[in-house]
Amino acid sequence: MIYIDKSSAVPIYEQLYYSLTNAIHSGSFAPGSKLPATRYLSDELAISRNSVNRAYHQLEIEGYVYAKAGSGFIVNEIPSVGYNDEFTHIIHTLPAAPALRYDFDYGNIDNLTFPYKQWRKSVNRTLDSVETCRSILYPDYMGEAALREEIARYLYRSRSVICNPEQVVITCGHQHSVEILANIFESSQKRCGMEDPGYDGIRSVFCNHHYQMHYIPVENDGLDISETMSRPLDLLYVTPSHQFPTGAVLSISKRISLLEWAHNTGAYIIEDDYDSELRYYTNPAPSLQSLDHNERVIYTGTFSKALSPAIRIAYIVLPHALLPRYHEYYHLYGSQVSPLHQLVLADFMANGSFERNINRLRTLYRKKQDLLKTAMNEVFGDQITISGDGAGLHLLVNIDTSTPPEILIEKASSCGIKLYSVKPYYANPSTAPKCQLQFGFPTIAMDDYRPVLMELKKIWE
Amino acid sequence: MIYIDKSSAVPIYEQLYYSLTNAIHSGSFAPGSKLPATRYLSDELAISRNSVNRAYHQLEIEGYVYAKAGSGFIVNEIPSVGYNDEFTHIIHTLPAAPALRYDFDYGNIDNLTFPYKQWRKSVNRTLDSVETCRSILYPDYMGEAALREEIARYLYRSRSVICNPEQVVITCGHQHSVEILANIFESSQKRCGMEDPGYDGIRSVFCNHHYQMHYIPVENDGLDISETMSRPLDLLYVTPSHQFPTGAVLSISKRISLLEWAHNTGAYIIEDDYDSELRYYTNPAPSLQSLDHNERVIYTGTFSKALSPAIRIAYIVLPHALLPRYHEYYHLYGSQVSPLHQLVLADFMANGSFERNINRLRTLYRKKQDLLKTAMNEVFGDQITISGDGAGLHLLVNIDTSTPPEILIEKASSCGIKLYSVKPYYANPSTAPKCQLQFGFPTIAMDDYRPVLMELKKIWE
Repeated sequence: MIYIDKSSAVPIYEQLYYSLTNAIHSGSFAPGSKLPATRYLSDELAISRNSVNRAYHQLEIEGYVYAKAGSGFIVNEIPSVGYNDEFTHIIHTLPAAPALRYDFDYGNIDNLTFPYKQWRKSVNRTLDSVETCRSILYPDYMGEAALREEIARYLYRSRSVICNPEQVVITCGHQHSVEILANIFESSQKRCGMEDPGYDGIRSVFCNHHYQMHYIPVENDGLDISETMSRPLDLLYVTPSHQFPTGAVLSISKRISLLEWAHNTGAYIIEDDYDSELRYYTNPAPSLQSLDHNERVIYTGTFSKALSPAIRIAYIVLPHALLPRYHEYYHLYGSQVSPLHQLVLADFMANGSFERNINRLRTLYRKKQDLLKTAMNEVFGDQITISGDGAGLHLLVNIDTSTPPEILIEKASSCGIKLYSVKPYYANPSTAPKCQLQFGFPTIAMDDYRPVLMELKKIWE
Repeated sequence: MIYIDKSSAVPIYEQLYYSLTNAIHSGSFAPGSKLPATRYLSDELAISRNSVNRAYHQLEIEGYVYAKAGSGFIVNEIPSVGYNDEFTHIIHTLPAAPALRYDFDYGNIDNLTFPYKQWRKSVNRTLDSVETCRSILYPDYMGEAALREEIARYLYRSRSVICNPEQVVITCGHQHSVEILANIFESSQKRCGMEDPGYDGIRSVFCNHHYQMHYIPVENDGLDISETMSRPLDLLYVTPSHQFPTGAVLSISKRISLLEWAHNTGAYIIEDDYDSELRYYTNPAPSLQSLDHNERVIYTGTFSKALSPAIRIAYIVLPHALLPRYHEYYHLYGSQVSPLHQLVLADFMANGSFERNINRLRTLYRKKQDLLKTAMNEVFGDQITISGDGAGLHLLVNIDTSTPPEILIEKASSCGIKLYSVKPYYANPSTAPKCQLQFGFPTIAMDDYRPVLMELKKIWE
């Protein structure tokens, strides 16, 4: 029985189409039977022949029926399984994240630090110029030329990195950079060294790609060089400017030894120049890449700390010898970063906003780190030992207590204060310091440092 | 010899630092020797003690020297290799892409079609609300809740896809979607079926991940089902709405058979619902996902065609059973799509701009496809056979000629007209039709169709 509701908002041809598919699925129109002639059906239902034709054509294109010369439309054989009856699907919303009063995360940034005004200007300027000058196209898989040029210039100015734009690959975050490297090395060179402790987000990329991992201990002046040299490595991932999470700076003599080792063994060094922009009392140490005469260093950087993690743009500087391997793997891929977004960032860099923002952040974060350190010492006195200051977005705090860190974290959490243990950064968590916490300071307001630490002290007692 | 130029723009402590590192590298200050006392050097050079202290501290942090109680700073042993002499590195710009007069690419879009005004409104509204309401944070690795909710609603409205936002993963393009799936299936299930011909950009993702590929021929009503069922597959990648590149629509009976097969064998079907929005004379056929009672379909879609490839946002709808596997692989990853960008798109969808834009595109592209088809037939007559019309952004054109397509393409290229062969879409290019070209129509203006085709005819004669 075909029923058409002329008062419905659903177009008539669609109502007819649904009635007919139901009739076919239910067997009312058996395979091999003929659909009514269009003229007959249009008269019968008092609808236009055009509506009938349109419904029949839709059934044809989906394979419900086929046209047979001279006989109209014949119903196809259709398996009887699995046709969704109509029902109303209610789409729920996602639950909101639990409310936190204070979050000592090191990676997020203070929302007040994002340069909204300058960013908005760059967005609007980019939309103007894109609109008038060029198509919105599938982007170059390495990234937009304008941004790659800005990055090459910035890296030379700020980190003495020697490269040209054709070596720069734009990625959507530092993990994506490492994933690209894990992909292009994957077929052959799978022995990878990494500092221990080190960033678990990167360790998981290599492990997911089934690399054979070698964990190298970190000393006061960066990773243990003799340990590194004793391992048969194809790749070494290192954070020389600001070792994560200890804050160690790789000494100049270790830098030079590492480069010599890489030159002699043919290993590549992935330099994660993490936090080089955020060093407060000295200049950042020279980048490994700037000391390298033999193109053994793959330089990587990100805009997550110096601008915002919400930008999701990072980059790789590939040695020339690796370019063919990169192109071989990626030549059929598109860029994964919106070119509009890339052009906004290029504009933001070209007009100087990016470097001004870094200077602003350096002043702000130095002040925040100092205040947090002072407040820590005032509140906890000799119960704690602080390290990792002078750079970056966190302090490492050793707490002299017999309570396991998990308990301290749990107690804080129940009062809406989120704390972080360093254990996940250790390949073997049992080798981590007994009770060391990482206090990131960007998201908490300076005035709150003392009160929240006092509260913590009370919670823990 | 330390020389300080007080008229230089380089800060004095930096000049001193560079002089001292050069002196250490050149051996003027031997390992174990002591740096001059700060008071002595400041008097000697007539600079402030503060500048000397700052330079020394920088040398210390980089490991050139160490502080020894009571004796000041002692020079470290430093390997003699590889210190970059100062030189000026000139960063060149990237060469511009070769000028094309006409590009028959199917994937790019007409720059006039991008809804700049609405997009700009959404950008500015998002920046306002982000600025006032929340931090710019590290995003959820699955994507922003607001966008995932909009996508779930849109898919239900437009494609009857039954899902909830917690199943939706935001990715930076369709290749990235497939890469995520290739990653989470990688450890165990590596036998993958794919239509032949099919999209080479996706084939390369599976091949790069070392999948064992099974190529399934395509018939007039979509992929060959009995061939599919005869293969031992873990995964099947399929474009049911608009087979790429042939334009075939998978018939309803094949859809149901496929779902039954997947249910019986435990295989997963990756549904690439490519171009479902761009069907001009009928509605799109129902999505496989909407017919699936057993959650064997992984639905994937993209904003590249219905909005712009420059947006670089696509999505996956994961069956519930795959969520644990996805989370296991990705729980330490960040999202690769800028949350700002995601929130702009969510706003753009929520206010109806996205669906209005699709309607506008559908009208425009239908007109363009019709005009190109008409012009083709007028200019080439029975030398050509056209297929794949009625949907999408291209026509397939078989040319009745003894000249190999490579020669036709080469001749056109020398006149600034870019043409595309279908050969790369065939796993074995020798099985491709003898002379079939793919004419994408989005980027070329309608008034140019006839003239450029006339020109082509002349070039080819």
